[in-house]
Amino acid sequence: MKKKNAPTMKDVAREAGVALGTVSKVINGLPVSDIYREKVEEAIKLLHYEVNTYARGLKTQKSNLIALIIPNTTNPFFAAFTDHIEGALYKRGLKLLLCCADGIPEKEIACLSMATQNKVDGVIALTYSDIGKYIAEDIPIVVFDRFFENHNIPRVGSDNFAGACLAIEKLLEFGCKHPVYLRFHSIFPGESDKRKDGYLFACKKYGIEPDFLDMLECSNELEQMKMFLDRHKKPDNTLTFDGVFAHTDYHGYMFTRLLRQEGYRIPEDVQLIAFDGIRKFGNEDGELFVSSICQPIQQLAEKCVEIVLMQDHSTIPSLTLLPVKYEYGGTTLRPENPPSCAGH
Amino acid sequence: MKKKNAPTMKDVAREAGVALGTVSKVINGLPVSDIYREKVEEAIKLLHYEVNTYARGLKTQKSNLIALIIPNTTNPFFAAFTDHIEGALYKRGLKLLLCCADGIPEKEIACLSMATQNKVDGVIALTYSDIGKYIAEDIPIVVFDRFFENHNIPRVGSDNFAGACLAIEKLLEFGCKHPVYLRFHSIFPGESDKRKDGYLFACKKYGIEPDFLDMLECSNELEQMKMFLDRHKKPDNTLTFDGVFAHTDYHGYMFTRLLRQEGYRIPEDVQLIAFDGIRKFGNEDGELFVSSICQPIQQLAEKCVEIVLMQDHSTIPSLTLLPVKYEYGGTTLRPENPPSCAGH
Repeated sequence: MKKKNAPTMKDVAREAGVALGTVSKVINGLPVSDIYREKVEEAIKLLHYEVNTYARGLKTQKSNLIALIIPNTTNPFFAAFTDHIEGALYKRGLKLLLCCADGIPEKEIACLSMATQNKVDGVIALTYSDIGKYIAEDIPIVVFDRFFENHNIPRVGSDNFAGACLAIEKLLEFGCKHPVYLRFHSIFPGESDKRKDGYLFACKKYGIEPDFLDMLECSNELEQMKMFLDRHKKPDNTLTFDGVFAHTDYHGYMFTRLLRQEGYRIPEDVQLIAFDGIRKFGNEDGELFVSSICQPIQQLAEKCVEIVLMQDHSTIPSLTLLPVKYEYGGTTLRPENPPSCAGH
Repeated sequence: MKKKNAPTMKDVAREAGVALGTVSKVINGLPVSDIYREKVEEAIKLLHYEVNTYARGLKTQKSNLIALIIPNTTNPFFAAFTDHIEGALYKRGLKLLLCCADGIPEKEIACLSMATQNKVDGVIALTYSDIGKYIAEDIPIVVFDRFFENHNIPRVGSDNFAGACLAIEKLLEFGCKHPVYLRFHSIFPGESDKRKDGYLFACKKYGIEPDFLDMLECSNELEQMKMFLDRHKKPDNTLTFDGVFAHTDYHGYMFTRLLRQEGYRIPEDVQLIAFDGIRKFGNEDGELFVSSICQPIQQLAEKCVEIVLMQDHSTIPSLTLLPVKYEYGGTTLRPENPPSCAGH
């Protein structure tokens, strides 16, 4: 594949009638008198001169690339997060290097090492791998949700604790008496663990007996949900719970389907609120799969980009939590149609 | 932000006891005798030497980056495509620069110009912008679905024509007599236009009177669907059609909801097959939103990467279409449960 002969900085200098060093100063944003700057800029336009990235990279050690480590882009939450990260970088003249690392820690480690080598200017990581020890102290990095014990790495997340409390308060407001909690979680500690803390706190506050299914993610999650459901059936087949707070929309949706398959009406017999705010077909204003505590994905992405670009480390907050909102998604009674009698 | 003093090629040469040129040859994959190669490789390991990308880029003019232009990653089809492109690049030691260009042609043009400037080694484009005239003749590029009249650009897509025929054949096999077609399309020509050709071809082949809603994408698509539905109601409120082939899963899902809201049973009164194969929550083995002709997203992504990396242009096919498959997604009668009487 042949390339046309691209003009060089020397060609620009000749065209502008200035020294090579003057062209270099203009290109690298260093002070030059206006008259020279104009001459150089005109010559650049005339010749369609483009800065040689590699030569520039050697000089400035800036790649204008930010790497995003994310498990995948097929999960709609990760997909939306990726999209908003790309948009937030674009606004700042930066480009996104995408690393979908699902299950391959080596891929994440390679990505971190790009930052050490200045091949990327920073890393935004949403990871469920054990990569703590590979994070060099001196690279610009921000993590979403995850907590690395041995590092002072800035974290961004949603206010999971407040969101969980909100879920329980909404269920109570809509007439539930016995909300249970449903979680399948990763082995790695993260901000989303606070959803459970929030559930337990709300139980205490409102005098509810805590009751939950809380397990590590596994291959037979549906089976586990069935067993949980069976344990909560009374002899007449009604349930001992009337509300569910699900740790994620995905599991909330799975449990909703299971309940319907077993003949329970949603939201009449059981109301369910999950967490995430995933929308069908990824439409920003589209339908939710279930009623949910919605994470502000765009704002979270914007915040991650802001933080990874901060130069003065002393001003970077170690934890930034953004507020969440409840949104109706078909699995709760609408507030405008409260049950005529809240007691069952 | 301070960086530790990284070892240089000179340090490696000193450690290995070889000339600088020998280190350079090993790093750049040029022939060196085994004994020298081993010495250099040992020194590289010992010193944790990392290749300086910029210096290397200057020499090889290879970035090992491939750019993907895609409208967004929130649409689940685009999200899955992005994920598989990333995976196919990773297998080859390449990295993905992601450009979510939805509605901003300047973003796509900037991305194309990165290829002209060797900042990326190639471009994979899934675009609905009018960027034909900005595509330089000499850059490695492959487009998904889209057709640029003035260029000889290799295209990859699904076999849309055969897929549309398959949709109609399946509807007939499941007992439909009057399948209609529903499409909202972009103003730009692309491979997916052949879904309509396939529908018309199948109508002719099977003696069906063609009947369709075929419009440009617009802001009142639901309104248009309602009007189409009303035009097809008989005085007793039954419909003059009993099958629908929807151009995309998204529109198929919208129309399914509309039909249900209006009291029609799916699949008993109307069966629907759409096109794409989008899965809830992005799970590879998850549920479809509607019965669908599924595009082989992973294979399509793999093919795009293969083609953009081909060195010998004379062997690149100008069009590559991959086969599609029908899959049940709740809006058709299951073949194992055919209607006792196919006639309505």
